[in-house]
Amino acid sequence: MKNGGVKYRQFVLPLLLGVIIWLATPLRPTSVSEAGWHILAIFVATIVGCITRPVPIGAVAVIGFTVTVLTKTVSMETALTGFSNASIWLIVMAFFISRGFIKTGLGRRIALNFAKLFGKRTLGLAYSLIAVDLVLSPAMPSSTARAGGVVYPIIDALANAFGSSPKKHTERKMGSFLIFSEFHGNIVTSAMFLTSMAGNPLAQLLAKSQGIHITWLGWLFASIVSGILSLILIPLIIYKIYPPEIKTMPEVKPWAQQQLAEMGAITMKEKLMMGIFLLALVLWTTGSVTAIDATLTAFIALSLILMTGILSWDDVLHETGAWNTFTWFSVLVMLADQLNKLGFIPWLSHTIATALNGLNWIVVLVVLCLAYFYSHYLFASATAHISAMYLAFLGIAISSGVPGMLAAMMLGFFSNIFGSTTHYGYGPAPVLFGSGYVTQKEWWNLNAILGVVYIVIWLGIGTLWLKVIGYW
Amino acid sequence: MKNGGVKYRQFVLPLLLGVIIWLATPLRPTSVSEAGWHILAIFVATIVGCITRPVPIGAVAVIGFTVTVLTKTVSMETALTGFSNASIWLIVMAFFISRGFIKTGLGRRIALNFAKLFGKRTLGLAYSLIAVDLVLSPAMPSSTARAGGVVYPIIDALANAFGSSPKKHTERKMGSFLIFSEFHGNIVTSAMFLTSMAGNPLAQLLAKSQGIHITWLGWLFASIVSGILSLILIPLIIYKIYPPEIKTMPEVKPWAQQQLAEMGAITMKEKLMMGIFLLALVLWTTGSVTAIDATLTAFIALSLILMTGILSWDDVLHETGAWNTFTWFSVLVMLADQLNKLGFIPWLSHTIATALNGLNWIVVLVVLCLAYFYSHYLFASATAHISAMYLAFLGIAISSGVPGMLAAMMLGFFSNIFGSTTHYGYGPAPVLFGSGYVTQKEWWNLNAILGVVYIVIWLGIGTLWLKVIGYW
Repeated sequence: MKNGGVKYRQFVLPLLLGVIIWLATPLRPTSVSEAGWHILAIFVATIVGCITRPVPIGAVAVIGFTVTVLTKTVSMETALTGFSNASIWLIVMAFFISRGFIKTGLGRRIALNFAKLFGKRTLGLAYSLIAVDLVLSPAMPSSTARAGGVVYPIIDALANAFGSSPKKHTERKMGSFLIFSEFHGNIVTSAMFLTSMAGNPLAQLLAKSQGIHITWLGWLFASIVSGILSLILIPLIIYKIYPPEIKTMPEVKPWAQQQLAEMGAITMKEKLMMGIFLLALVLWTTGSVTAIDATLTAFIALSLILMTGILSWDDVLHETGAWNTFTWFSVLVMLADQLNKLGFIPWLSHTIATALNGLNWIVVLVVLCLAYFYSHYLFASATAHISAMYLAFLGIAISSGVPGMLAAMMLGFFSNIFGSTTHYGYGPAPVLFGSGYVTQKEWWNLNAILGVVYIVIWLGIGTLWLKVIGYW
Repeated sequence: MKNGGVKYRQFVLPLLLGVIIWLATPLRPTSVSEAGWHILAIFVATIVGCITRPVPIGAVAVIGFTVTVLTKTVSMETALTGFSNASIWLIVMAFFISRGFIKTGLGRRIALNFAKLFGKRTLGLAYSLIAVDLVLSPAMPSSTARAGGVVYPIIDALANAFGSSPKKHTERKMGSFLIFSEFHGNIVTSAMFLTSMAGNPLAQLLAKSQGIHITWLGWLFASIVSGILSLILIPLIIYKIYPPEIKTMPEVKPWAQQQLAEMGAITMKEKLMMGIFLLALVLWTTGSVTAIDATLTAFIALSLILMTGILSWDDVLHETGAWNTFTWFSVLVMLADQLNKLGFIPWLSHTIATALNGLNWIVVLVVLCLAYFYSHYLFASATAHISAMYLAFLGIAISSGVPGMLAAMMLGFFSNIFGSTTHYGYGPAPVLFGSGYVTQKEWWNLNAILGVVYIVIWLGIGTLWLKVIGYW
């Protein structure tokens, strides 16, 4: 760890790529502005820097930010707007709320009860946690609140109770598997209901502008087969390719009962935390009626946690995972946002459209879905990606002869499953990744494999299913 | 410290005041919107909460933020903009840069050299530090960069070298006095030159719109007597009313020399830190030519500090002072900003103007200056205050018969010295206060006393001086 842990050789690749793209600016497509090409160079260098990791990704992000403003690619004022993004503050709050679960012992108590009920097999635990997510999903459109605010605190407490923690380098015992399973469980539940992810109604709205009407039940009918198949298969696949070290615990029931007995009666602080959590749950599920958005709910929860003394302000300040994720994610969101605003993404969509001109509609649908999926490496938010590409791609599909409803639904599903790519591409990712249970290399590699599975299930089987139910 | 340190009785006063003002909404002046009156209630409750401190001010700020959005006084989107303020990020960066000074030992080395040269008397040390600020001030319009980026790291290292630290409850030994003296030294140097505070050229511009032309030398001529008098007197007064425990150190020279000898030769890391610091200094002083603003310079410095391994990313995440100040200051800036935008501040200016109608011009000048000074309790930035009130007050002054140049200069000076009020009212305040050397009670009380001294010197003696040099 000399040089304060800086690995200078790892700077070479990101710098080289960045410089090459930057120098290629005169060769750029005419519709992309100079700044739009420069931001591509900085974005690519930053992302590759997040992979080669000469310094931790927070530091890579700070350097990326500095270069962006220093080269006048983006003004300081605009660059700083990433720090005032409501979705990011929801993520930050999720870390604090989770700390409240852990500090009071409530998380441990819930975890032990989960262990008692479903803990004989780690795989069973994963399914039970995903079931929690599934039950909440139709009524809680913030997938980040579900994964980060509800399920993550339980997983963190569970893993801790079983001695699995990134701080002790024992994350693979159980925590890594549960975190990654929930990440994917959350992706699937998000894709299943019109109201389980904030971007879905946006897709619905955009489809309507093309004369395609998607109802709540219509979405569910279309998603149900691929959804259930994914919910069953994906955790199994993760279990095979990224297994937990603790797989079975035959004695877990008496052990958990004993631990619970040792914990004694539920304390006042735990009751308060439970009350705050239930309030947050109610507010999250009734958000569309009360107009209290998910981030505000999280702020309310944190305020109550602080006022009741469950957490001290010092606890909040020392929750470094929150500040870390806040910094790097804000910068990546800003860069990805500018990639769109400065013209690169529009050019990319247009280029794909042109290339598809005159092909068979099945080929067009496949290529569009793949392009939509893999271009998600360039985005730091599902909603941003939908806003940038959904309508253009739907238009291309329809004009190439793809049945409208089929195209609209497929792109809608892919607006969720493309979450199976990066650690910054989809709200729950920064929270679950930021917890430190899964390394970035694992995150990218495993997601790359699972991405293919999703494509087969949702595009392959899903298309057939839509034929069966007469959607085309 | 039961209830996690929450002092419930201290919630009563802020809540009571907030509720009373809120309930008085129907009685509000007609020109203030309902939201404008509500934000006043929240602002007052938050500030009083910062004083009674039921929970630390960061937590008070989070609660204030939550109430603001929950009551729909301000939208979530607008409320979050406080977190993307460039001045605030400069403050955050100042904390990190300071950590680089401390960690490398460079801060200690510079501090020991200061101690060797000026350390016989603590008062002498304070004067020498203010001299550093004074020398930089004409060329460095960011008073925050001067106080936070340059002088603060030296003070922190000095205090540490003498065993004075808030973490050990020994801050009064030396650190508190030096921090508070520099805060006031910085206020005075800011008032002395047209180019030593970002708001001064704004005042100049606003004065021009009233046909009053202020030149760089003209400003200096007007400020020089009050400025020099303040630079001499203010540290002396602080020395009397807020003395350091260590006042003289006859043996400091051999001691410092011995400590320096023990430190050995300057290390590579120290050299790097020195190089980065000098680069930042050059960029800060040439900012108006290079168009590299103070915040960007600080980001460049942090990027280099991270790339050279002077600080690890983990050091940055554990610099809780930065995250603390970031949170509470962002919220207060947002609240103060909305106080202006939602109509309360415009109403206040207008009311004062009406009340002054037809009075003797000397009375008008005095009342205006006092109102300008004390209304600064409502602001979280000098520039914001200038933007909101300077022109209105100058207009009232001129139409009441105050000589134009006298009014313009006085309001210009007061745009700096009103910094002698709160811990959130003026860029350098959050950094120096956030360091923890001075309690909030001390900060407010001492500033209240020194505020009177400033008013006597700048308004009293200053007005006479402007007569002597023929400005009126």
